[in-house]
Amino acid sequence: MESKSPLIGVIMGSSSDWDTMRAAREILERFDIEHECEIVSAHRTPDKMRDYALSAESRGLEAIIAGAGGAAHLPGMVAAQTLVPVLGVPVKSRALSGLDSLLSIVQMPGGVPTATFAIGESGARNAALFAIAQLATTRPELRQRLQAFRDEQAAKVEGQTLS
Amino acid sequence: MESKSPLIGVIMGSSSDWDTMRAAREILERFDIEHECEIVSAHRTPDKMRDYALSAESRGLEAIIAGAGGAAHLPGMVAAQTLVPVLGVPVKSRALSGLDSLLSIVQMPGGVPTATFAIGESGARNAALFAIAQLATTRPELRQRLQAFRDEQAAKVEGQTLS
Amino acid sequence: MESKSPLIGVIMGSSSDWDTMRAAREILERFDIEHECEIVSAHRTPDKMRDYALSAESRGLEAIIAGAGGAAHLPGMVAAQTLVPVLGVPVKSRALSGLDSLLSIVQMPGGVPTATFAIGESGARNAALFAIAQLATTRPELRQRLQAFRDEQAAKVEGQTLS
Amino acid sequence: MESKSPLIGVIMGSSSDWDTMRAAREILERFDIEHECEIVSAHRTPDKMRDYALSAESRGLEAIIAGAGGAAHLPGMVAAQTLVPVLGVPVKSRALSGLDSLLSIVQMPGGVPTATFAIGESGARNAALFAIAQLATTRPELRQRLQAFRDEQAAKVEGQTLS
Amino acid sequence: MESKSPLIGVIMGSSSDWDTMRAAREILERFDIEHECEIVSAHRTPDKMRDYALSAESRGLEAIIAGAGGAAHLPGMVAAQTLVPVLGVPVKSRALSGLDSLLSIVQMPGGVPTATFAIGESGARNAALFAIAQLATTRPELRQRLQAFRDEQAAKVEGQTLS
Amino acid sequence: MESKSPLIGVIMGSSSDWDTMRAAREILERFDIEHECEIVSAHRTPDKMRDYALSAESRGLEAIIAGAGGAAHLPGMVAAQTLVPVLGVPVKSRALSGLDSLLSIVQMPGGVPTATFAIGESGARNAALFAIAQLATTRPELRQRLQAFRDEQAAKVEGQTLS
Amino acid sequence: MESKSPLIGVIMGSSSDWDTMRAAREILERFDIEHECEIVSAHRTPDKMRDYALSAESRGLEAIIAGAGGAAHLPGMVAAQTLVPVLGVPVKSRALSGLDSLLSIVQMPGGVPTATFAIGESGARNAALFAIAQLATTRPELRQRLQAFRDEQAAKVEGQTLS
Amino acid sequence: MESKSPLIGVIMGSSSDWDTMRAAREILERFDIEHECEIVSAHRTPDKMRDYALSAESRGLEAIIAGAGGAAHLPGMVAAQTLVPVLGVPVKSRALSGLDSLLSIVQMPGGVPTATFAIGESGARNAALFAIAQLATTRPELRQRLQAFRDEQAAKVEGQTLS
Repeated sequence: MESKSPLIGVIMGSSSDWDTMRAAREILERFDIEHECEIVSAHRTPDKMRDYALSAESRGLEAIIAGAGGAAHLPGMVAAQTLVPVLGVPVKSRALSGLDSLLSIVQMPGGVPTATFAIGESGARNAALFAIAQLATTRPELRQRLQAFRDEQAAKVEGQTLS
Repeated sequence: MESKSPLIGVIMGSSSDWDTMRAAREILERFDIEHECEIVSAHRTPDKMRDYALSAESRGLEAIIAGAGGAAHLPGMVAAQTLVPVLGVPVKSRALSGLDSLLSIVQMPGGVPTATFAIGESGARNAALFAIAQLATTRPELRQRLQAFRDEQAAKVEGQTLS
Repeated sequence: MESKSPLIGVIMGSSSDWDTMRAAREILERFDIEHECEIVSAHRTPDKMRDYALSAESRGLEAIIAGAGGAAHLPGMVAAQTLVPVLGVPVKSRALSGLDSLLSIVQMPGGVPTATFAIGESGARNAALFAIAQLATTRPELRQRLQAFRDEQAAKVEGQTLS
Repeated sequence: MESKSPLIGVIMGSSSDWDTMRAAREILERFDIEHECEIVSAHRTPDKMRDYALSAESRGLEAIIAGAGGAAHLPGMVAAQTLVPVLGVPVKSRALSGLDSLLSIVQMPGGVPTATFAIGESGARNAALFAIAQLATTRPELRQRLQAFRDEQAAKVEGQTLS
Repeated sequence: MESKSPLIGVIMGSSSDWDTMRAAREILERFDIEHECEIVSAHRTPDKMRDYALSAESRGLEAIIAGAGGAAHLPGMVAAQTLVPVLGVPVKSRALSGLDSLLSIVQMPGGVPTATFAIGESGARNAALFAIAQLATTRPELRQRLQAFRDEQAAKVEGQTLS
Repeated sequence: MESKSPLIGVIMGSSSDWDTMRAAREILERFDIEHECEIVSAHRTPDKMRDYALSAESRGLEAIIAGAGGAAHLPGMVAAQTLVPVLGVPVKSRALSGLDSLLSIVQMPGGVPTATFAIGESGARNAALFAIAQLATTRPELRQRLQAFRDEQAAKVEGQTLS
Repeated sequence: MESKSPLIGVIMGSSSDWDTMRAAREILERFDIEHECEIVSAHRTPDKMRDYALSAESRGLEAIIAGAGGAAHLPGMVAAQTLVPVLGVPVKSRALSGLDSLLSIVQMPGGVPTATFAIGESGARNAALFAIAQLATTRPELRQRLQAFRDEQAAKVEGQTLS
Repeated sequence: MESKSPLIGVIMGSSSDWDTMRAAREILERFDIEHECEIVSAHRTPDKMRDYALSAESRGLEAIIAGAGGAAHLPGMVAAQTLVPVLGVPVKSRALSGLDSLLSIVQMPGGVPTATFAIGESGARNAALFAIAQLATTRPELRQRLQAFRDEQAAKVEGQTLS
């Protein structure tokens, strides 16, 4: 499932985030995008996070999808240490339902950008689709497959009935 | 200031958003990125929005930065009609200070991604920096300039004193 | 249950909204109002949404009830493309309990109105009652039935005892 | 400015709401809709409110636009006492910026509907436009003027330039 | 359980509020305070509410405890129609957990006061205790029993152990 | 302005709260209610607060109006140490506009009640009116004056015109 | 489990807070820190609270961890009556998920500090770790054990795999 | 003003935070505590932040006061890289008034504690007082001065009059 030369890195602050972030992997697998999934904690493993960020570009990553909950510092801190685009996914937190995660990720000061997606699984899924759309900018074949995905998605809506 | 073959489109729902979105243009100009700035309203000019989205890819846009406030539908609706990556900027709104803008942009359902940035100028600035980082993935020279920008930014912090 | 020449259209962004929107249909059926129920997604089927909005008037719809959750763009975007009154129902969302849905629907900029109702089933029910009250403005018999509904509702409260 | 046989009633809880609700009147005047504007306080003049609601239908009102701030009970309480459609406008409040007004108006229980619009002037403006759209359902000439208003609005956006 | 000449009235907008408001009755019963419990809906039975408020003083009520959820207008509207002190209890609502109920009750404009208590059972319990404290101002024996209640409450805390 | 044997005590956590609490005094003066106004800080003068609470009953106070902002502990802590009814006024705070003050005062656990009023001046004004209504329960003359106040208030609304 | 001469006091407003505060005790036990755990209610046992605070220093406590929910006054009121550092833990509340607890604890006015930690178990755990870090400032051996704890924590993250 | 061997470090993410953090320095100067004030940005100077955190213990710092606004990662990230107690001050942010700053700082996951104080100046002031209270645990003379500070503060409240 994981590849030797991944284009996309999927990281998260804790194994409990995997239930959410799995949705990102499903999309990446569906599109056959080389990727890797790892636990990298901003607070418990700051050195691992730093190494991850600093080596991301040379290792060929073209986007990093980072999920975290609560005082979610992972996306912003990785973004602070690499030029590779970082896509943040706010994981739903126990007390505040992810509002804390969302604000901790999205409200970055000017100068260090982190792209943020919806709280929870939809966000994980969309971060992966966004990363693929980025890759597709220079990979026409991928763009076609993205279009097919969208068409299929639209067809599914068309086909649904209510009862 | 605007170019014939822009790589980045900057759009916004109303001329009152320009005070915020100007920060995106400043970054794009600083990096000499071909771009265009336009008012495209999801609610008042839905056809213009549709045309903008549908033609974005063929016109060569590699990213669209869309700012809107309140019930901010522009980023999501453009994203629904193009595969070009859409970066949403929540503009600070009068009553709710942009919390409505933020949630309207970031809480997209799975399937149609919109990358979201901070409320207000910081978000506009970061959306532009993110778009450039995307372009830089396949333009090494741009990556160097981004790195220089970051170094300069760090140096400025180092040089500041408190009194 | 659905009719050839509906007066009221009930649309929603996803089949998962049906649990909520069903409450609107129950009211419409109770009052024998010709109606139709359909899935129309702003993000996944923007063209279907556009066609729906553009044809609404000529098809004889006198109100459109639109339910959506999260970054809920459906009511506002339909309202942007038709003069038929649009009634928005914020569906309760997973993380933020519908606060995002509510703000995405109600905070429309001046110029394109969307009437908004409560989050969830109560809102769906009330949107239908509101649509009927609109119809009743020119249909005295319907107004009588609405009054009877209210009387019955009041009687039910009067009859309840606490234990 | 006020008429003998108004179609639309504009009421508000306090004279301080007039700064907001004036935007509704501007729209009604622009479309030459017979209307009336009055202060009717749910808390300070409950009897006047009751009379207003109970006589609305027989006086020929086809919609009531009610603005209020804070614990905003006016729209819901009028709606409880008439079948004439009630459109609520949450006025921006001092401490909570209208979030309290919004929730007090929109979160009505199932059975008594109140259509809610955005906090502040945009909401007042849109409530008036919505009331006109309702009237237009059976007045084709009004619908044409509404369409012209929208076209003009779109043209204004098209004509704007950024600098 | 209910008495002929009640001192305290406990009312609520719907039978579903009884689960919460029952906690008020338990306190009143414990202190042998003459009281009555009834469903009085601001929106579904506005006339009953009005009669209740207008007759409260002559019927000898010294306080009215009113519970309601969502757009909770009952406490404020009763307070608008009687000089008998009204104590509002925000019932926990489905989508917004009672934040809407709380703001709808507490944010009353200057001129018509409603005393507000905590969301849910604690609030119902405390409204009853507060009403008793009011009565106790002129009933020394009741004050003694209130003091005994507090002493007992303190003793219970002292006696608890953790394990 | 202050009296030897006050019936109502008005206290507040800081002199900066006086701008808000002054509205309570204005009402008390208007009704010629014996009262006293003092700064009593829960955090800076806990002993003074304790003495104030413990002596309130024997000093003849029939209600205590307590205003505080931010982590507003004054109303609840006074209520914990006296049986005299405590009316809390949330003062608008700098960062969170009084939402923190409101929640700190209203969300009391079952067993120790604090009656809460609106954030800011309206709340101060209403707390005073509520205290007077309490007193009026056993003072018919005061009830008449309260009724006159309400009548005057209603008349003022009736007399207002919009322009 | 409890000791004769505790260094750290763990107190909470109610036995229902024990589920949360137990996490603090687990950390203290793991580090063999002398401690005590007790129920001390600001509202139900204000005298016990006062005694606890006033005697804390002479009893040798070097930190007090205080957990409370809703209108959480315990941490701030203890801090007002002792110079021993107070660490507040907002317990998740039923209606507002601990947002009320958090604001009631953290928003202290200048002059009386309370250190605040996350809502719920994480906060209890971290308050204990923080107290230990304080003790470790003058106890090198403890600092080593804290470092070992962190190393172990990091190692655990490194060792986790996703599947 | 700054010292060679500081006991307390005051850091902040940007020079614009100095208006807030100055309040911390004023307290430290008043108590003659050796300290240093510096700009250390988590996002713009991650290496400086890391060096600061890693050297804090050996440089003799006994507490670090860290202020930051928006997606405020500085306190948590410093705490992740040192055992020296970190006290976080949420700086009021432009759009969300510091609610984002507060949640980004306080909602730390279990394992890495950050003590959090109020939004804005009060928080900065209290963080300094808390740091001094920590130092005072082993410095009796400092504890006496803290007590004098509190006494003076209480006396100031006692001496205030309202007019």
